[in-house]
Amino acid sequence: MSYTLLQLAEKTGARFTGNGDCIIECVAPIQNASQNAISFVSSSKFSKFLTDTKAGAVIVTEALSENLTIPALIVENPRACYARIVALLYPVFKPEPGVHNSAVIDATATVDASAYIGANAVIEAGAQIGANVYIGSACVIGRNSHILDNTYLHANVTVYSGCYIGENCIIHSASVIGADGFGFEHDNGEWVKIPQVGGVRIANNVEIGACSTVDRGAVVDTVIEEGVKLDNHIQIAHNVRVGAHTVMSNGVGVAGSTSIGKHCLIGGMTGIKDHIEITDNVIITAMSLVSKSLTRPGSYSSNTPIDDTRTWRKNAARFRQLDEMARRLRQLEKKLEKE
Amino acid sequence: MSYTLLQLAEKTGARFTGNGDCIIECVAPIQNASQNAISFVSSSKFSKFLTDTKAGAVIVTEALSENLTIPALIVENPRACYARIVALLYPVFKPEPGVHNSAVIDATATVDASAYIGANAVIEAGAQIGANVYIGSACVIGRNSHILDNTYLHANVTVYSGCYIGENCIIHSASVIGADGFGFEHDNGEWVKIPQVGGVRIANNVEIGACSTVDRGAVVDTVIEEGVKLDNHIQIAHNVRVGAHTVMSNGVGVAGSTSIGKHCLIGGMTGIKDHIEITDNVIITAMSLVSKSLTRPGSYSSNTPIDDTRTWRKNAARFRQLDEMARRLRQLEKKLEKE
Amino acid sequence: MSYTLLQLAEKTGARFTGNGDCIIECVAPIQNASQNAISFVSSSKFSKFLTDTKAGAVIVTEALSENLTIPALIVENPRACYARIVALLYPVFKPEPGVHNSAVIDATATVDASAYIGANAVIEAGAQIGANVYIGSACVIGRNSHILDNTYLHANVTVYSGCYIGENCIIHSASVIGADGFGFEHDNGEWVKIPQVGGVRIANNVEIGACSTVDRGAVVDTVIEEGVKLDNHIQIAHNVRVGAHTVMSNGVGVAGSTSIGKHCLIGGMTGIKDHIEITDNVIITAMSLVSKSLTRPGSYSSNTPIDDTRTWRKNAARFRQLDEMARRLRQLEKKLEKE
Repeated sequence: MSYTLLQLAEKTGARFTGNGDCIIECVAPIQNASQNAISFVSSSKFSKFLTDTKAGAVIVTEALSENLTIPALIVENPRACYARIVALLYPVFKPEPGVHNSAVIDATATVDASAYIGANAVIEAGAQIGANVYIGSACVIGRNSHILDNTYLHANVTVYSGCYIGENCIIHSASVIGADGFGFEHDNGEWVKIPQVGGVRIANNVEIGACSTVDRGAVVDTVIEEGVKLDNHIQIAHNVRVGAHTVMSNGVGVAGSTSIGKHCLIGGMTGIKDHIEITDNVIITAMSLVSKSLTRPGSYSSNTPIDDTRTWRKNAARFRQLDEMARRLRQLEKKLEKE
Repeated sequence: MSYTLLQLAEKTGARFTGNGDCIIECVAPIQNASQNAISFVSSSKFSKFLTDTKAGAVIVTEALSENLTIPALIVENPRACYARIVALLYPVFKPEPGVHNSAVIDATATVDASAYIGANAVIEAGAQIGANVYIGSACVIGRNSHILDNTYLHANVTVYSGCYIGENCIIHSASVIGADGFGFEHDNGEWVKIPQVGGVRIANNVEIGACSTVDRGAVVDTVIEEGVKLDNHIQIAHNVRVGAHTVMSNGVGVAGSTSIGKHCLIGGMTGIKDHIEITDNVIITAMSLVSKSLTRPGSYSSNTPIDDTRTWRKNAARFRQLDEMARRLRQLEKKLEKE
Repeated sequence: MSYTLLQLAEKTGARFTGNGDCIIECVAPIQNASQNAISFVSSSKFSKFLTDTKAGAVIVTEALSENLTIPALIVENPRACYARIVALLYPVFKPEPGVHNSAVIDATATVDASAYIGANAVIEAGAQIGANVYIGSACVIGRNSHILDNTYLHANVTVYSGCYIGENCIIHSASVIGADGFGFEHDNGEWVKIPQVGGVRIANNVEIGACSTVDRGAVVDTVIEEGVKLDNHIQIAHNVRVGAHTVMSNGVGVAGSTSIGKHCLIGGMTGIKDHIEITDNVIITAMSLVSKSLTRPGSYSSNTPIDDTRTWRKNAARFRQLDEMARRLRQLEKKLEKE
């Protein structure tokens, strides 16, 4: 794929300066770009590279565009413009519509003629596959599940029965949508399974990374709202609701029946307890444990700072005496107040 | 599926009051149940909904059954009774016995005539599949592994060679049973792999969630005892023993050769170190790190509480001075004792 | 498989004492080995078992070899010698070369005649499979990816397009190589996907456990250097570099663009933030959060020690007052200094 700078400017709505005929074939970091590449600079930290770069063109803000000697796209958000240009230069792989002859499609399933079903994929009874959907090799789509238009499932995704996945979603390999929520009741020394009869409902424009799980609801559906982006190794337990445009980094675990607001940013490997509510616009830093509802927007954290193990061990041992230390400190204060 | 209340009472051994002929077709939360639904109330927190619910019937304790105006099942443990009723109303999907024509069964494998083998599943040489077993689409059962009666493997489960999975087990998608334990020996600046030649032995009535791993033993077997319930993203390392009826929530990691007792509850994303012993009836709260043996029943925790990031940062910085603070506190005490 | 002790000595370069003709068929722990087994003892902790063991032979150090009454291999590193003997006695399963008739090989893919492609595996367009490679059942190898000689992929591994996996590697089931890095740019209240157009480059002698993910780079490749060993549930984000011979235990998450040195040992469930550098020979203990670059070799930790929940709760509450306590302590010190 290649475009002239002028074409890229038109397609992204960017203003441009310099030679609009220069040919752009790829993207590259500003430090080691070659003549056929476009790079972006969004922070002054990298602006020093603008003078010497060999890039054919750059994407910059108004502020960074002064004194530029090479062709440029000028936009408010260079990184967002860059994202759109990458999408143009590297189109997503989409084979001709059709069903690979090794795929297994149940006679009662519906597959739109514009969809592609990959090698050894399995579409079970009553499942519905929408227009322009891509089902990767060896995916399994369970009974009566719906995959809506333009959604892209990479190889080896498993969707259980009775799940809905919206339009323009992307799901990566080895992820599992609709496995049973973890529900048991203790009775006579054993655990009785509570069958999980809700489903999963994923809205449009959601992306889910590899090896992630979204469990089906106990009775009502587990819900992922529009535009949510989940990284790898994420766990969304039964009955959870994840608000629109919320982002979770690798390894976050959200326990059952918790509700998370819109536009939240959840740092990697954070744990969120069951049956709590997190409001909109909450940021949680990496590896925190959220053990109570967070009712006000803002940034939250737990954990302790990294240290050399020897020092850490001494401090960690004192953590076990912290309450006692606080009491002793209070004692001293009282003693001195009296004097 | 539908049952009369009388039928449900008979099948669960519950006492009932009110119209035994009322028809129950589904379950629903007490707040928004309709006439064909049964709900349960086990805590007084939800008892206020009993007056106004539109549910056809409810499952309650003796104490909550007074003044009820709707049909009810009266039991000691409403949630356990509810679990059994859900199982009746929503039977697990079980197709007619047989082998899907796309499945690959090695000539030396044994598949009971009452079992079902799904589309594109692979049963390797010498594997044995018991009565009424369900092997989901695209599962792979390794050489000489045994899957005992009534066990249910959802799509895309991988069982390595030489593993035993007991009766009435459930394993969810993308889980892996019997991958190599993580064993290497450092020699001349490189890691020499120690081949893992033990197996995995899973007892009856075990459930394992999605994307979980149970590694094979180094020499002897990794063992999961009867009735254990593991959630998603669990790691059970080589040589571990998990005691009967122990439950682990999402993301727990148990390192090699550790032994965990019976009836333990391990909170989500807890890490348990290698070569330690945890006795029976231990509770560990979420995201704890268990770095030593726990020889007494009870509840254990580590980690720090969630706080706004600004406050947390100040406190976390002090954590690095904790030992010094303790020493200074002791100094002050000594000084004041002298005076 | 069976060997005489003499044969094992020759193949491992060990010195031997006692009857070189004794037949060794298996390995076993020293405590319960039988006549046909060889055991190893590398620490004095287990040396007491040497007198009474029923093992046919043992592997020991020079120091432990005195007064031995049974045949022995004498080496500097008994565990490394043991690893090599296990590999001899339990050879890795390797079927005859060939392509299972249920596998799907694209016409433009190249498969070496000495490779084995398992049942229902999928090799997509342009992929190249080297000599003696084993591709397990139901694996998917994406377009134009290369799997070099002697590499072994267990069942159900997914390799995306454009990835390189070196020689003598092992990858376990449900792992995903080359899924999109997690890159989005916020624009007008929504997240714009930044297509991930780099690849993954895995060097020789790397082992990756089950349910692990190595994401493709945003523009340049994600790199795993020679001899790295990754356990299960590992996340390697886009643009990360993992230095040669580094080892990570279960559940470690490495965020984007971070660089990790050679010969590091990363404890289980540790989180490592994005855009930092960790130098060579760093040890990080389990469940630490590495939030800044570590420029000096050594051991590092964070987290708090396990305690009974009641005590922990009191101490954890005080953690939230730590900065205030430090200030009050300083106040007292000043007060006493004045007096």
